[in-house]
Amino acid sequence: MGGDKAPGEIVAGARQAAEQGKIAVVLVGRPGELGDTGDLPVMAASEVIGMEDDPAHGVRRRKDSSLVRAAEAVRDGRAMAMVSAGNTGATMASALLRMGRLPGVIRPAIATPIPDPNRAWPTVLLDSGANAECSSQMLVQFAEMGATYAHKRYGVERPRVALLSIGEEKSKGTPLVKETHALLADGAGGAGLEFVGNVEGRDFFEGLADVIVTDGFTGNVALKTLEGSLRFLMGALTEILVRPEVRETAEALLPHLMPLATALDPETTGGAMLLGVNGVCVISHGSSTSVAVVNAITVAHDLAVAGLVADVAASVSQAPAD
Amino acid sequence: MGGDKAPGEIVAGARQAAEQGKIAVVLVGRPGELGDTGDLPVMAASEVIGMEDDPAHGVRRRKDSSLVRAAEAVRDGRAMAMVSAGNTGATMASALLRMGRLPGVIRPAIATPIPDPNRAWPTVLLDSGANAECSSQMLVQFAEMGATYAHKRYGVERPRVALLSIGEEKSKGTPLVKETHALLADGAGGAGLEFVGNVEGRDFFEGLADVIVTDGFTGNVALKTLEGSLRFLMGALTEILVRPEVRETAEALLPHLMPLATALDPETTGGAMLLGVNGVCVISHGSSTSVAVVNAITVAHDLAVAGLVADVAASVSQAPAD
Repeated sequence: MGGDKAPGEIVAGARQAAEQGKIAVVLVGRPGELGDTGDLPVMAASEVIGMEDDPAHGVRRRKDSSLVRAAEAVRDGRAMAMVSAGNTGATMASALLRMGRLPGVIRPAIATPIPDPNRAWPTVLLDSGANAECSSQMLVQFAEMGATYAHKRYGVERPRVALLSIGEEKSKGTPLVKETHALLADGAGGAGLEFVGNVEGRDFFEGLADVIVTDGFTGNVALKTLEGSLRFLMGALTEILVRPEVRETAEALLPHLMPLATALDPETTGGAMLLGVNGVCVISHGSSTSVAVVNAITVAHDLAVAGLVADVAASVSQAPAD
Repeated sequence: MGGDKAPGEIVAGARQAAEQGKIAVVLVGRPGELGDTGDLPVMAASEVIGMEDDPAHGVRRRKDSSLVRAAEAVRDGRAMAMVSAGNTGATMASALLRMGRLPGVIRPAIATPIPDPNRAWPTVLLDSGANAECSSQMLVQFAEMGATYAHKRYGVERPRVALLSIGEEKSKGTPLVKETHALLADGAGGAGLEFVGNVEGRDFFEGLADVIVTDGFTGNVALKTLEGSLRFLMGALTEILVRPEVRETAEALLPHLMPLATALDPETTGGAMLLGVNGVCVISHGSSTSVAVVNAITVAHDLAVAGLVADVAASVSQAPAD
């Protein structure tokens, strides 16, 4: 029921994933509003938490919403994973409250792939928006979970983990960043974690790291700035390429521009992953079309089968009792 | 003496600004290392604070450095403004320690213009890196100083001031953001300040505000992410346009692409301004060429003549005694 193009594109993507990927997809929502669902089973949920609704309030009050029911299905073993293009905060809250945190995890984090056209795998940014306020212990856990995710999803053998700051030097940044730097440099993430120090906002496409760790406020601002800047420039270019006086000439460029545009398109990345909850939860872009939904469902399926959650659980160093 | 291309490009830009703009430019540095300085007077300074040096330490120890001497010249009335493409932190520290803060200003902030090709003036982002840690009172002052700057430099009649956050709603963000939002919504910036609420990272090119206020950590990450994303995409495009098979097409496109590239080029914006110190201090990009230096000197001159500092001083609401 969630997303700017729901339910049409969501249902279309779900059907496609089921047909092409042989994935057993279950739709959750109001049966009468889903249109042609084909052969897909529908788990009825009478309520909807909208894009503009308050997440915590929505999850608390709308117990029969599609998001809450989907999270319960994962909790109860009736589904291996959930995928939503709806309200990000409510998706997160549903997963957190119904599936629960993994043992020892202080707070779950949203891990978002930043495409890097210069190499075969993206850079994982986390937290890209789950927690506006973080402690250094949380950031250490984000480093651990992010490295596990980069390894599990993208096959990066020994992911390089960096901390987002405003200078390379360990003396740069907020007290939170400096404290986290000291912990990671001191081996807080365990011997398996390859900490490569600080990176800056300009380094997202420089290939310096496989995982970039930050608090959810900074991460969200950085991610949206990056997406907004690329979208702006792509839009300005498109506006130029359709001008009558260059239109014909521009057509010769298209085969060259398309691979770049595709590589940078959030539709192709398969969505963000909520790490640290006891189940697989993929958060797809609000503007997801069926293409993005197919990718998100495929990623959710593959990582559930591959045992992502168990690996994340094993990678997290225990936090002090809270 | 500062900047990646110093002293060659810096001196060239200074000479050009003096010749074309009839601006009385004084060079500060090691006379023997400046090359052909033409008719420009040189104020001798025997030391240099390098790009990689610790700012506070450098300013404290190198009292005869070009940065410290330039700031003293402004303090003593022997110059109306200083311009540097050198170590940003040391430029800031020199200005702060030698010129001093304006009365009532808690901390100065770096205001950086973000070009917006859709309109005739840029969006002013502050703080883009002076203060990793901020209080809500500081952010209110940044709003006041930023609005004065947008008015004075770009002629924006009634600048719209926004707060950078992770959602439009006043409930979104860190405690600092929420507290600042409440203060500004409550009229803390005075009746003259037009506060338009929160904006997000994706809104930098949406024209929603003339001034965007944030702490120096978030602002620096956002600015560098924005610059890095644009540079990355411009680079990828350039790589495509020089391919032999599209070269001819590319040439037809150039007259269309150039205005966009020029509008987004940090070289053309005239540099960032340190607001809140008792003097005009322009911080030019480290990679500044002579073009950027001419722009920076012209901006510094024009704003000193126009009385920017007095206006900024008048716009700042008094902070509680510290």
